[in-house]
Amino acid sequence: MQSKDQASALDAKVTPRFSQPATFLRAPLKSDLDDIDIALMGIPYDLGSGNRSGTRHGPAQVREMSRLIRRINGSTGVAPFELARIGDIGDAPVNPFMIKESIDEIEAFVDAVLDRNVVPVSVGGDHTITLPVLRAIGKRKGPVGVIHFDSHSDCADSFYGSKLNNATMYTRLVEGGFIDPKRVIQIGIRGTYFSAGDLDFAKANGIRVITMDEFEELGRDGVVREIKRVVGTGETYFTFDVDGLDPPLCPGTGAPEPGGFSMRDIQVIVRKLSGLNFVGADVVEVSPPLDPAGHTAVNAANVLFEIVCLIAQGRAGQIRRDRQAAQG
Amino acid sequence: MQSKDQASALDAKVTPRFSQPATFLRAPLKSDLDDIDIALMGIPYDLGSGNRSGTRHGPAQVREMSRLIRRINGSTGVAPFELARIGDIGDAPVNPFMIKESIDEIEAFVDAVLDRNVVPVSVGGDHTITLPVLRAIGKRKGPVGVIHFDSHSDCADSFYGSKLNNATMYTRLVEGGFIDPKRVIQIGIRGTYFSAGDLDFAKANGIRVITMDEFEELGRDGVVREIKRVVGTGETYFTFDVDGLDPPLCPGTGAPEPGGFSMRDIQVIVRKLSGLNFVGADVVEVSPPLDPAGHTAVNAANVLFEIVCLIAQGRAGQIRRDRQAAQG
Amino acid sequence: MQSKDQASALDAKVTPRFSQPATFLRAPLKSDLDDIDIALMGIPYDLGSGNRSGTRHGPAQVREMSRLIRRINGSTGVAPFELARIGDIGDAPVNPFMIKESIDEIEAFVDAVLDRNVVPVSVGGDHTITLPVLRAIGKRKGPVGVIHFDSHSDCADSFYGSKLNNATMYTRLVEGGFIDPKRVIQIGIRGTYFSAGDLDFAKANGIRVITMDEFEELGRDGVVREIKRVVGTGETYFTFDVDGLDPPLCPGTGAPEPGGFSMRDIQVIVRKLSGLNFVGADVVEVSPPLDPAGHTAVNAANVLFEIVCLIAQGRAGQIRRDRQAAQG
Amino acid sequence: MQSKDQASALDAKVTPRFSQPATFLRAPLKSDLDDIDIALMGIPYDLGSGNRSGTRHGPAQVREMSRLIRRINGSTGVAPFELARIGDIGDAPVNPFMIKESIDEIEAFVDAVLDRNVVPVSVGGDHTITLPVLRAIGKRKGPVGVIHFDSHSDCADSFYGSKLNNATMYTRLVEGGFIDPKRVIQIGIRGTYFSAGDLDFAKANGIRVITMDEFEELGRDGVVREIKRVVGTGETYFTFDVDGLDPPLCPGTGAPEPGGFSMRDIQVIVRKLSGLNFVGADVVEVSPPLDPAGHTAVNAANVLFEIVCLIAQGRAGQIRRDRQAAQG
Amino acid sequence: MQSKDQASALDAKVTPRFSQPATFLRAPLKSDLDDIDIALMGIPYDLGSGNRSGTRHGPAQVREMSRLIRRINGSTGVAPFELARIGDIGDAPVNPFMIKESIDEIEAFVDAVLDRNVVPVSVGGDHTITLPVLRAIGKRKGPVGVIHFDSHSDCADSFYGSKLNNATMYTRLVEGGFIDPKRVIQIGIRGTYFSAGDLDFAKANGIRVITMDEFEELGRDGVVREIKRVVGTGETYFTFDVDGLDPPLCPGTGAPEPGGFSMRDIQVIVRKLSGLNFVGADVVEVSPPLDPAGHTAVNAANVLFEIVCLIAQGRAGQIRRDRQAAQG
Amino acid sequence: MQSKDQASALDAKVTPRFSQPATFLRAPLKSDLDDIDIALMGIPYDLGSGNRSGTRHGPAQVREMSRLIRRINGSTGVAPFELARIGDIGDAPVNPFMIKESIDEIEAFVDAVLDRNVVPVSVGGDHTITLPVLRAIGKRKGPVGVIHFDSHSDCADSFYGSKLNNATMYTRLVEGGFIDPKRVIQIGIRGTYFSAGDLDFAKANGIRVITMDEFEELGRDGVVREIKRVVGTGETYFTFDVDGLDPPLCPGTGAPEPGGFSMRDIQVIVRKLSGLNFVGADVVEVSPPLDPAGHTAVNAANVLFEIVCLIAQGRAGQIRRDRQAAQG
Repeated sequence: MQSKDQASALDAKVTPRFSQPATFLRAPLKSDLDDIDIALMGIPYDLGSGNRSGTRHGPAQVREMSRLIRRINGSTGVAPFELARIGDIGDAPVNPFMIKESIDEIEAFVDAVLDRNVVPVSVGGDHTITLPVLRAIGKRKGPVGVIHFDSHSDCADSFYGSKLNNATMYTRLVEGGFIDPKRVIQIGIRGTYFSAGDLDFAKANGIRVITMDEFEELGRDGVVREIKRVVGTGETYFTFDVDGLDPPLCPGTGAPEPGGFSMRDIQVIVRKLSGLNFVGADVVEVSPPLDPAGHTAVNAANVLFEIVCLIAQGRAGQIRRDRQAAQG
Repeated sequence: MQSKDQASALDAKVTPRFSQPATFLRAPLKSDLDDIDIALMGIPYDLGSGNRSGTRHGPAQVREMSRLIRRINGSTGVAPFELARIGDIGDAPVNPFMIKESIDEIEAFVDAVLDRNVVPVSVGGDHTITLPVLRAIGKRKGPVGVIHFDSHSDCADSFYGSKLNNATMYTRLVEGGFIDPKRVIQIGIRGTYFSAGDLDFAKANGIRVITMDEFEELGRDGVVREIKRVVGTGETYFTFDVDGLDPPLCPGTGAPEPGGFSMRDIQVIVRKLSGLNFVGADVVEVSPPLDPAGHTAVNAANVLFEIVCLIAQGRAGQIRRDRQAAQG
Repeated sequence: MQSKDQASALDAKVTPRFSQPATFLRAPLKSDLDDIDIALMGIPYDLGSGNRSGTRHGPAQVREMSRLIRRINGSTGVAPFELARIGDIGDAPVNPFMIKESIDEIEAFVDAVLDRNVVPVSVGGDHTITLPVLRAIGKRKGPVGVIHFDSHSDCADSFYGSKLNNATMYTRLVEGGFIDPKRVIQIGIRGTYFSAGDLDFAKANGIRVITMDEFEELGRDGVVREIKRVVGTGETYFTFDVDGLDPPLCPGTGAPEPGGFSMRDIQVIVRKLSGLNFVGADVVEVSPPLDPAGHTAVNAANVLFEIVCLIAQGRAGQIRRDRQAAQG
Repeated sequence: MQSKDQASALDAKVTPRFSQPATFLRAPLKSDLDDIDIALMGIPYDLGSGNRSGTRHGPAQVREMSRLIRRINGSTGVAPFELARIGDIGDAPVNPFMIKESIDEIEAFVDAVLDRNVVPVSVGGDHTITLPVLRAIGKRKGPVGVIHFDSHSDCADSFYGSKLNNATMYTRLVEGGFIDPKRVIQIGIRGTYFSAGDLDFAKANGIRVITMDEFEELGRDGVVREIKRVVGTGETYFTFDVDGLDPPLCPGTGAPEPGGFSMRDIQVIVRKLSGLNFVGADVVEVSPPLDPAGHTAVNAANVLFEIVCLIAQGRAGQIRRDRQAAQG
Repeated sequence: MQSKDQASALDAKVTPRFSQPATFLRAPLKSDLDDIDIALMGIPYDLGSGNRSGTRHGPAQVREMSRLIRRINGSTGVAPFELARIGDIGDAPVNPFMIKESIDEIEAFVDAVLDRNVVPVSVGGDHTITLPVLRAIGKRKGPVGVIHFDSHSDCADSFYGSKLNNATMYTRLVEGGFIDPKRVIQIGIRGTYFSAGDLDFAKANGIRVITMDEFEELGRDGVVREIKRVVGTGETYFTFDVDGLDPPLCPGTGAPEPGGFSMRDIQVIVRKLSGLNFVGADVVEVSPPLDPAGHTAVNAANVLFEIVCLIAQGRAGQIRRDRQAAQG
Repeated sequence: MQSKDQASALDAKVTPRFSQPATFLRAPLKSDLDDIDIALMGIPYDLGSGNRSGTRHGPAQVREMSRLIRRINGSTGVAPFELARIGDIGDAPVNPFMIKESIDEIEAFVDAVLDRNVVPVSVGGDHTITLPVLRAIGKRKGPVGVIHFDSHSDCADSFYGSKLNNATMYTRLVEGGFIDPKRVIQIGIRGTYFSAGDLDFAKANGIRVITMDEFEELGRDGVVREIKRVVGTGETYFTFDVDGLDPPLCPGTGAPEPGGFSMRDIQVIVRKLSGLNFVGADVVEVSPPLDPAGHTAVNAANVLFEIVCLIAQGRAGQIRRDRQAAQG
């Protein structure tokens, strides 16, 4: 039977990986936020996709492919489940027909997580979901910094007349003061553009944009330095759009753009970001119907694990101190 | 080069089926509605799906799989392209983020078709699209009858608080007086229900519901008789949801329900409906991302052909008379 | 967040089907057996497959495809979650390298379920799993009857020198006195045989074997009559091997045999079996690696629902009486 | 190691089905025609396909899926490998660029088989291959009868100006006097036609055409009677185009036509044809690139087995008598 | 409806990418060559493949995957549809059974394009199609240079006795004087060879062959320098065989060879080739039946876009001057 | 017909690659070990996989994908079939239910190969198979060196209580003295770990472990130097686990770990290892059910060819000398 008291991720040495209902990183399902420091959650929302959608099924498949993840980071030695209490709290509520209502429901769901001083780490869903998550964070903490891996800048003002979708969320976040554009860095931008001005908003607001052309000049270490320079020691959010990867690594995504990152690029860069001050993170744009074999989700689950290592590692002490203060 | 003056479907004896851009039934692309009697159109709308979507890509794949269709109905001998001028007029405009606006745009697109006295035959998209098509038809002709193959009755009042989606379009159509529920017949209803009252609206309004259980009792001929009895000689619309078929015939649909029709059932029944007074038709719920090999679209294209045969056959004379009167 | 107190299956009118971690029939995960009357469980064991395996991943995919199931049986009106308390208790423990140990662990897991007077309904796994389940049942209740849909008789004595695998479990069950062969009926047997004597054991022990040839003579109603005649009113187990279905309905199984049942056959027959005295059931041989699109699991989930309806319906009263007696 | 002296098909009770290089029906590879009575051979030719090809890979995949076949026909009890010496003699030579040369090479390959009084049973390849096989047979034995399952009549005179392809082979066979059209029966004809006269040649020459419409009227037994009436006791060839099956049973074929046979239809009919005088057979139009999971080949391998049972059964005695006479 | 006067590619900000019939790069379909400067065309020919074919379906799938392409090159800022009038003129005629006839028909189709001074950019089809295209170009302009990305040198004299196929087209082109071998550069050659002399013809004729081994030594910039040195300022053709890419980037091709280019390699190199004097181009060897998810076509569409940018950019002025001269 | 005397791999210039039953590298099937110097064999065993299995089908698919391999190494010019007599000897016997028995049967099969002084090169199967192969080698030659490409170190002591599986074979080999850990080098180790001590055994025994992190520091040439330094001139085995590759290159494997080798890495490194003293090799962990398109097997077949080139090249003289001595 499912144990009522599972405290850590299932151990692949004890419970075969093909066994038991799937959860993110094999973490225990938790309904009580007081039991956890980091909340893994799905946000199965895809009403913000202007072309190929299907990311509403992303959380389910990332959970399923999380079976492949063991409990220790082989490269850094980080054991996140020993550093922090991590739970899968299920999915944020969404309405399959209503955009604004869904965004609001997601925000409220994240509000509840933040109210208990738990760090939200979510799996999308399309990139729109970063908007309600960062609204919830920003309204508590003021404008935060963002590390953003993606092939697209997502800085349009509107798309088909809509102000709320996966191409415009940055504009809304800057407008609302939820993020500090001077502390935002976008890495991996490339592909064909809708119009010559696709990056204008980003540039005008001081967002640091690293295209793939510049990435090759800077190298991984140069990018790490730029990330640290831009976001500094302030509170920072991490958002990873799987279409930042090269397309064979993300067949299951709506807008693949050739010429992207290898998983090795991501691993090397992300592992060097420990020590930053993370207040939340997401992995988005996994669209299982476009990827029956699930390899996009395999990569997404691995990136999720790397991010969780970062957060658990860097904030292990802080999480506990904060919670003690909050409870004390 | 593409011929400016292609008048009929591409002939598979002359132009290989793998060749040339794909259109519905290999019909010519037409921008002038005065050139045609029957308008094939795509309606790439899927904002009405409460679970698995992807039907926005349905028109593209049905066009692609239409390559397999030749020009003569082997069973009935009907040669639709000799009976009527048939063109593919492209896709209705839709907005990928806005439900009401899309519905209105689709209705306006169909309005333009009807204004030229052309019969609209559309390929979805999810089943919501039947709503704007029948609104356009109903506001011109008064409440029409409907022949409806499906596993679902689509008669909810609202779904997740939304009144406009693929589970509620019948309620809207009856409310609006666009269809005459006494002249509506639904065939193939089955599967698990949301609630015990799923068929209440249909029954209360006099819609004739033939479940699969009853279908087996009646047999194909019995169903043909019931269809003719219910819709009579009045103006009638034909809507075919591919999930009426047994799931191996429609892997690419959002809500497969085991225990459905064979294609043979459909062929036999549909071929016996000639002589009815058809004012339009649609084939809906083809979701290509759920069916990479395209077999759902193969079946959809075949059903589309059967329906076009019916319409071209039964109304060949009428179409010409109507148009002459309209122009005269 | 996951509710601690979810009492029924998630309602598709409220929680979108693509949302929340997947469980069998969207039932609540339960760790306390006293909360439930019927226990849905996975048995991810496939060390008993002599050719193509992969069924260890069956429970995961049947849970995933259970998302498509709503809460009411459209044909019979049965609402199982209103008749009985039904929970998903996770997976039985198995050892991925050890056959006998796994069989024993599964038996012990089922023992615990039976000890609380809960009806076990499991999803395999290969057909070997029926052995430990029926050992647990048989040692409590004496030899029981079995309704068995399959293309294979599974009555070999040994296979590659092994006595414990998916081709021999009947021999072990009869030998051990866990089932009463005179009250066993196998339906759907067909395909190529290993040797001329493949059915000898079944016949010698009085097992009623209905081949597909005989099925066509008897018809569905004749089969229903035979089932009722053979198993009578005694305690009866129901085991459904998905390879009883025609191969397009079960691409994801190890040994597809052309010429099998339609899902309609199964639906019609199973729905007529209410009133029998079921002590447990299983659905086995779903092999997801052979079926990336998951349609075998769609059918398996539907059969699982039909069986759960039967058990909930027929034994709703009994379950409660038994439990009261046990607790009283 | 491979045994030099393997005399029968590999026994699935001894050699696991996933093991050893794949051959048709797991028969031994044979290079000496004097060792065998029935020669299984591949004809990997697909230059005769006017639309979707890929059948050059058919023999490879039918060999692979033959692993699923055991050695006894469960329904009839026929054990073909005990009745006749059956070997896989590899593939006929073909030229991937030259049509006429390939046809001639195939004919010469079959000539060699017939010269040793061995019965040729081939796996295509597109349906063109029946032409050289029947030329080789017809020139020895005079015009033979043909039992032909297919959705297409294949009786065009030319196609894209070509006289040698999978739509014209009957015309060539009748013209050349290799078959007796009065003793030819085509079963399953359906689908859209190229032109109104698609069946004219067949009718004009007295070929018996049973469309699916007529098949439903006659029933399986009626078809069996018609087959026996048409081909009589004379020498008869059996050709099975997999697109005669309903499309979910043959996703991997170039021209699927909805509304076809079930495998059960084929099994029941074919098993009743024992006693006819078969001089050869083929199974054609398996296109693996259109069917990654291989289910078309699973069905093709099963049909191949049924046909081999027929030939081995009916001609077991004759084969031996003939060979003794030839050698004596 | 389709606009009669669509002048540019569909704008993804206005017409959703999933909408409207698919054309190359979403360019307008054009039947009048006087309306365009660059003609995109399909050449659905695959009779030149010695092993796995299916490239006859390449144009259809590259059109479909062109939906993903927007209108501006994000890296270079080139907006090809603003620089030149670009249309999709449909497919060249081919005969599915006749090699020489098809080659001649393709040549005549390209002749008509060149006669109107339009630059032909084609999508194959197998690599044989470069032969008729370059015959049409060469007979007008004399021997031209060629930039050729591929894993294979395609310089055999004959293959299975055939002189016209995808392994021999270079030999025919050099023999015919259509290309200047001293101005031909092949990049990416690798894989297993048929014989030790596979590259002899290339070397003997002065073709510059850069194997993957040498590519790694030279680096991308070194290759760019070599390309410019070899082809110089003369008229130059660009041919891109998708099997030059590493296999995960081109699962849908007949002869994948591990160890190939990344898309990033291609992007960086191609973008540096502006200013060369391009007289035509092709992208070949996309075989959709080997790649249901279409990722090979995604990459092919992106390479097509890069090439079109080059041609539109470098020759925008020249195109207009030439046409004015021709018309003046 | 199959030639009795085929001495070399089928020539793709003569026998089309899609033709004839599939064997490893198109080598002749050989039952007499005296005919060959190098024995290619399948070991279809997968009872050692703790999570996703299916590698029992690996040999079949690597044979099938071997069709793509021609006879000459394009980069090195090595023509292995001219240097040594190479045959496919079929599959080692395995028992699908019994671990120890299978291991013993495999060892006996390899014993027979070694007894005839033939070099065994096997295709798995899961990585457990390296244990019986190296037991057979080690007991004849004493502890040998190992070059091992993999993402996993496979040095656990037991897994689920089992001592014989694909995570423990190194421990068994070192314990048994079959390999010399000081002459073992593992390259590519990465991914998540079961526990912090996953590499302890390797380190404690002096196995040289090169993680991906170190690989990037050393570069390919540095790794080549380390390999040569570690294994020296002594007898050395080569084992290649396909999960050493980056996941898009090995979708068909049980435990993909992002951030792995490119095929180019492998090609460059392996081609520089000529001159080492190889006594056997294997390629393992190809799981076809997880990779319907077969691209993992394409890569495995290419790696197999590279290894066979190495062995044929380096030991061509030695093989002949040894055999003459043995026979003399």
